[in-house]
Amino acid sequence: MTEDSNRRIVLASRPVSLPALDNFRIERTAIPSLEEGQVLLKIRYLSLDPYMRGRMSAAKSYATPVEIGGVMEGGTVAEVVATKNPDYRIGEIVLSHSGWQTYAAEHGAGLRKLDPDLVPVTTALGVFGMPGFAAYSGLLNIGQPATGETVVVAAASGPVGSVVGQIARIKGARAVGIAGGQRKCEFAKNTFGFDSVIDHTSPDFDARLREACPNGVDVYFENVGGKVWDGVFPLLNKFARIPVCGLISQYNDSGPFDGPDRLPLVMASVLSKSLTVRGFIQRDFADQRPVFYNEMADWLTQGVIKYKEDIVDGLEQAPEAFIGMLQGKNFGKLLVRL
Amino acid sequence: MTEDSNRRIVLASRPVSLPALDNFRIERTAIPSLEEGQVLLKIRYLSLDPYMRGRMSAAKSYATPVEIGGVMEGGTVAEVVATKNPDYRIGEIVLSHSGWQTYAAEHGAGLRKLDPDLVPVTTALGVFGMPGFAAYSGLLNIGQPATGETVVVAAASGPVGSVVGQIARIKGARAVGIAGGQRKCEFAKNTFGFDSVIDHTSPDFDARLREACPNGVDVYFENVGGKVWDGVFPLLNKFARIPVCGLISQYNDSGPFDGPDRLPLVMASVLSKSLTVRGFIQRDFADQRPVFYNEMADWLTQGVIKYKEDIVDGLEQAPEAFIGMLQGKNFGKLLVRL
Repeated sequence: MTEDSNRRIVLASRPVSLPALDNFRIERTAIPSLEEGQVLLKIRYLSLDPYMRGRMSAAKSYATPVEIGGVMEGGTVAEVVATKNPDYRIGEIVLSHSGWQTYAAEHGAGLRKLDPDLVPVTTALGVFGMPGFAAYSGLLNIGQPATGETVVVAAASGPVGSVVGQIARIKGARAVGIAGGQRKCEFAKNTFGFDSVIDHTSPDFDARLREACPNGVDVYFENVGGKVWDGVFPLLNKFARIPVCGLISQYNDSGPFDGPDRLPLVMASVLSKSLTVRGFIQRDFADQRPVFYNEMADWLTQGVIKYKEDIVDGLEQAPEAFIGMLQGKNFGKLLVRL
Repeated sequence: MTEDSNRRIVLASRPVSLPALDNFRIERTAIPSLEEGQVLLKIRYLSLDPYMRGRMSAAKSYATPVEIGGVMEGGTVAEVVATKNPDYRIGEIVLSHSGWQTYAAEHGAGLRKLDPDLVPVTTALGVFGMPGFAAYSGLLNIGQPATGETVVVAAASGPVGSVVGQIARIKGARAVGIAGGQRKCEFAKNTFGFDSVIDHTSPDFDARLREACPNGVDVYFENVGGKVWDGVFPLLNKFARIPVCGLISQYNDSGPFDGPDRLPLVMASVLSKSLTVRGFIQRDFADQRPVFYNEMADWLTQGVIKYKEDIVDGLEQAPEAFIGMLQGKNFGKLLVRL
């Protein structure tokens, strides 16, 4: 099972806009030795998520950046292969935040044991983990969709958007998705049950979106920004809610941004329509995680909520897969199998 | 008491930017005759408020615009001078929404009787009326200031800003005001009890504001926009709340607005700081008015909350006073005494 060294991917340099392969470097180091209370983890799956782009920049966001030469951060599903912690046995599968590497020594406190008999363990990095909980907590706490209302979300075939759409429908709302390309649109509609899915690469995107929302938009779950925001914003109804979960379209830009300045008209609409624009990260709602795990486990085991994974093989593939994800090339929750 | 005709100010033409005197026209018409259930009101005080600028434009905001040739809209305090409604006696003082004119026939349903022995009746147009309730409802429902937090509000000597600051202090928060000119700043500090008041005409406004908020800003009650927003925005703390009540600095602009585009960086902060930006009008919280009237009556009669009025005499002065208010020339709640 074990190899004789740890492989890891570190941040070699900070990207200016879209990251390139040479912003990453693969290293080989000794497998860490264990202190009392630690377990040795062999990483089985690494999660790749848009927020990691923020960690590559020096600017402090809601979390501190990865240092140059530091291991890239990330959620992981791992197997216990050695233990100096009586609470963990060899062979157990845990969720950890061990980053882009093949081995890690971790204290028990930061780990969550996974039950492979309940749902596939990879879901702990997607629908049954951080992205799923971001969708759940943002939609229910901020979006608060009511029966008959219209909920719009982009990246509708991705791990956050797909869960937003499915929970919106569970709550009796109409779910309108946005995705890039016909294949993703059809999949989101057929598999995730969106009432309508619009292709943002279509030249008449704005008009199609307007047609798909004949009663306006009550909840816009924001995870992309850019032209999707521009298309949705005029459709917002009085009292619409906008949970702001991500802005992937602008993560590679640092500004200044070309005019015209959109802020005055946005603020005028915030005022005249009594809009709520509220940013969040899933940690803001940490006390709701137990409820989420219960409810989502039921939805998953009953087949009420579906998910799609996009798995690439080999740690060395992570940088390219990550760069592709920032360009919308993934199709479903992006994971690296080690 | 009564004259032989009604004088009224109508919208002669729509302003493009700052209204000019020729956008208004004064007319003389017959005093309206009463239908069953109506009262004849002689207007004593007319309220002039920033929202009226919106009503002069053709664009639909949260309310329909005044039509060309229509009487300018506005809140009024009036005396019943004739009555065909058994619920109203001659001599009673009421709050009505009769607009910029000297007489009006109104059904009883839209009126609120005022008690001149409780508080001065002019306060029904200010601290004890719409502006006061806008401050109260927006600050408490959206701003939710906690003990020790910092609340920032502009137009600190005006009817909304002064109430925001005083309620913030009642709730144990630190109140930082912004006003135009040394006279208003000193008044806001000495009379309304702001912990600090910054002059936005000062060349080092941003630096002074930063000094006045050593622990950052937890609530920014937005009623002006423009450069005040720009100064406050970088100071916002994680989880800060921004009730959006008004944007007087941009009411005379219709766009497009020159770049750079501020929206991407604003949205990035909304996300990274988990900010809440929420627009409202006081009507959104209409069910809380009874509580407000009780609480504010206590605060006023006990002298806990103070107010300042800026009264001009004569209906014909209304247009010039209104135009001046949009430029910050008023000093306190602007009223026209008829």
